[in-house]
Amino acid sequence: MRNIKCLVEYDGTNYSGWQRQANTSMTIQQKLEEALKGLTGEDTTIYGAGRTDAGVHALGQVFNFFTDSSIPTDRFPYAFNTFLPADIVVRGAREVDAGFNSRHASCGKIYRYQIYNGIFARAIERQYYYHYSARLELARMKEAAGHMTGRQDFSAFRSAGCGAKDPVKEIYSIQIKEENEDEIIIIFSGSGFLYHMVRIMVGTLLQVGRGRIKPEEVKEILASKDRRKAGPTVPPEGLILQEVKYGGC
Amino acid sequence: MRNIKCLVEYDGTNYSGWQRQANTSMTIQQKLEEALKGLTGEDTTIYGAGRTDAGVHALGQVFNFFTDSSIPTDRFPYAFNTFLPADIVVRGAREVDAGFNSRHASCGKIYRYQIYNGIFARAIERQYYYHYSARLELARMKEAAGHMTGRQDFSAFRSAGCGAKDPVKEIYSIQIKEENEDEIIIIFSGSGFLYHMVRIMVGTLLQVGRGRIKPEEVKEILASKDRRKAGPTVPPEGLILQEVKYGGC
Repeated sequence: MRNIKCLVEYDGTNYSGWQRQANTSMTIQQKLEEALKGLTGEDTTIYGAGRTDAGVHALGQVFNFFTDSSIPTDRFPYAFNTFLPADIVVRGAREVDAGFNSRHASCGKIYRYQIYNGIFARAIERQYYYHYSARLELARMKEAAGHMTGRQDFSAFRSAGCGAKDPVKEIYSIQIKEENEDEIIIIFSGSGFLYHMVRIMVGTLLQVGRGRIKPEEVKEILASKDRRKAGPTVPPEGLILQEVKYGGC
Repeated sequence: MRNIKCLVEYDGTNYSGWQRQANTSMTIQQKLEEALKGLTGEDTTIYGAGRTDAGVHALGQVFNFFTDSSIPTDRFPYAFNTFLPADIVVRGAREVDAGFNSRHASCGKIYRYQIYNGIFARAIERQYYYHYSARLELARMKEAAGHMTGRQDFSAFRSAGCGAKDPVKEIYSIQIKEENEDEIIIIFSGSGFLYHMVRIMVGTLLQVGRGRIKPEEVKEILASKDRRKAGPTVPPEGLILQEVKYGGC
């Protein structure tokens, strides 16, 4: 049996997230498993590197699966894409060791959050931006982001229902930049992320940017381990899983 | 009666184009006229600077209309956007002379055509790119584009059904550039454009890029005035009306 690792891009707008659910067929995992069934005839489980939430997008999600099929490894992307809807595209495939699991083998992930800071929302590409029209001070946000990096207990930055046993994660870097007119892009690189963690970090950074939280207060929020002290959870449409890292972060 | 000039952005994916039609309510003009009726109570005609086709987008379309409403000019964008769907956004408004007509007053337009040249199509932002996977030689395309500029008879680059009396237009410039990975962007600046002209020019440039038409053959195609000599009409989703120019091009 071969173990195949794939790279997949998806537009999460019309999906209930990555993970297979009993009450809906609209999950990325299910669409991939159905495509695989169509092309190999096998009932196979797809193992994703990360469970993106409803409405969240991915440029570089990774998954693996085991197969007895005779399809050559490099043909899997073509085969998958024949069976997949236009908003899910498999971009690459290679064979890996039988022991490889896309989630456990990863040393980190890069998430990108896109904010449109103009007065009116966008019409074009509106599916990929959170429209937030309040004036923001980026210098304050960058200072606050500095306090969020490093190896820390992120209990204050996870939603109720987070199943992770260990709330300690390492954030390698947070980059905040202006792209084009009125676009603010925040890039998070970290060892792993708790449930809603990126979206609560962004919600907190926006509160800092508009002056409602002081940059240095982020240290107190982290120390409190209290979700209620952090900012709101921003919407999923601005979030993109950009890359899953292996073999050194 | 005031004459109001507005800037509007729209995602054309779900529309049958700009112009009001008898058999569908899904045109940009109709949505704007309905919004205006909702906010002023007036049955008013919206005059657009250009009639974009079904599926074509606009970042900077311009329109004007006459009104007796008491709404302050700078509040019109907010008022419009309350009545418009999320894929049409009015971005600005100002009062102009009674004699101003957004179409006749314009000295030119800038169109942008977006090609995704990767092996597999995009999932994210797929609504705004034409996926074309054949390998392209950009140097050849740039040479061919050079022959398309200037004041010329563009009869070979218009579709049947073009209502324009004069097929002579001036193309000020054509810029071809690579953006990010596998994105090719072509920007056309010109005095005006015939029916499907940008999309036939792009279709011809792609034939040049893959070696089926020689760059210098573009001169013969223009001289022939024969639509059949030019390349195919590329799909609408890659096309964006970027700007309508006034007061000097």
